[in-house]
Amino acid sequence: MPHVTEPLSLDAEAQDLLFREARTANTFTDEPVTEEQVRAIHGLVKYGPTALNSQPLRVVLLRSAESRERLVRHMAEGNRAKTRTAPLTAILAVDTDFHEKADTFFPDRAERIRESFADPAVRQEKGTFNAALQAGYFIIAVRAAGLAAGPMTGYDSEAVDKEFFTDGRYKTVLVVNIGRPGPDAWFPRRLPRLGYDEVVSEL
Amino acid sequence: MPHVTEPLSLDAEAQDLLFREARTANTFTDEPVTEEQVRAIHGLVKYGPTALNSQPLRVVLLRSAESRERLVRHMAEGNRAKTRTAPLTAILAVDTDFHEKADTFFPDRAERIRESFADPAVRQEKGTFNAALQAGYFIIAVRAAGLAAGPMTGYDSEAVDKEFFTDGRYKTVLVVNIGRPGPDAWFPRRLPRLGYDEVVSEL
Repeated sequence: MPHVTEPLSLDAEAQDLLFREARTANTFTDEPVTEEQVRAIHGLVKYGPTALNSQPLRVVLLRSAESRERLVRHMAEGNRAKTRTAPLTAILAVDTDFHEKADTFFPDRAERIRESFADPAVRQEKGTFNAALQAGYFIIAVRAAGLAAGPMTGYDSEAVDKEFFTDGRYKTVLVVNIGRPGPDAWFPRRLPRLGYDEVVSEL
Repeated sequence: MPHVTEPLSLDAEAQDLLFREARTANTFTDEPVTEEQVRAIHGLVKYGPTALNSQPLRVVLLRSAESRERLVRHMAEGNRAKTRTAPLTAILAVDTDFHEKADTFFPDRAERIRESFADPAVRQEKGTFNAALQAGYFIIAVRAAGLAAGPMTGYDSEAVDKEFFTDGRYKTVLVVNIGRPGPDAWFPRRLPRLGYDEVVSEL
């Protein structure tokens, strides 16, 4: 039986894998990340809740050196080397026309959902929020696959969107390197976390 | 030893607890959610990565009937009864002045971080994105505590902000009911999830 630390139900090994011991990796080995692994990651992410089950997150996988280079040139200097050498890089994007899939994600209310998201500005705001929730699930699911995630926001997002999403429907929200951690993958010291009383209050 | 389903490293029981079997609860028992449980949830959430370790999520716990009622009156009709009867309701908010804590969360770059977030519009956008990532970790961590989460976006967010965050610094991003699932807690059928090929593509 897995070891459980009260008051959590999740076993301690899983707590470590997903949260306590997991770190943002800055180097990777060249062991490939397989499609089977990405399918297993999606198989978890898809169950995470979103408003009205809207699931606006889309994922573009960059594997070839050529596709990677199209991204790297729009990234901050400090993110380039690791993005070139990670076995897989995922662009996480929001589909700002997510409501068009309402027949699939909420068949009984599809018409009403499409109407309530008629305004593109509302779709962009709500879509981005729900895609960000799903990006959180995605990072946890990468770790659930025994892989390290390297999420990055240091890039020119307008340029990345122009490069990959010419019709303007998808907007990049996060870029994540994925692979097995390589030598010196972590910063020596984990950055400090805010304490309970700095984050949580009660009324 | 926990049962592992290749190619995931996370054991199958944990996969079920956090993703596969977890559902958004709509009714709750009256078993209290203890501060010890919330501290354990925070003890996981805090490790989830955020841009520049900025950790902009703040959590306001509503326990008393009185504080709950202040929220309920700004909620959509369909969210009222369950929010009144959940043992605990959490308002998840973004601290739009998160950069003021840079000395704590990134001591070596505090000055540069404060400068780069001088613009309140940038802070609101980036802060909301990172708070949403953390809201994703929060939902997973509630489940890790063996509790059901009931995340909701059906409320008048301006009115909720005016009610609870009079100085405008915090902005509500999500409301989450927390507790043990009660009778008929779930909709009979889980809503459909988008398939791999609708979400993931490769370049």
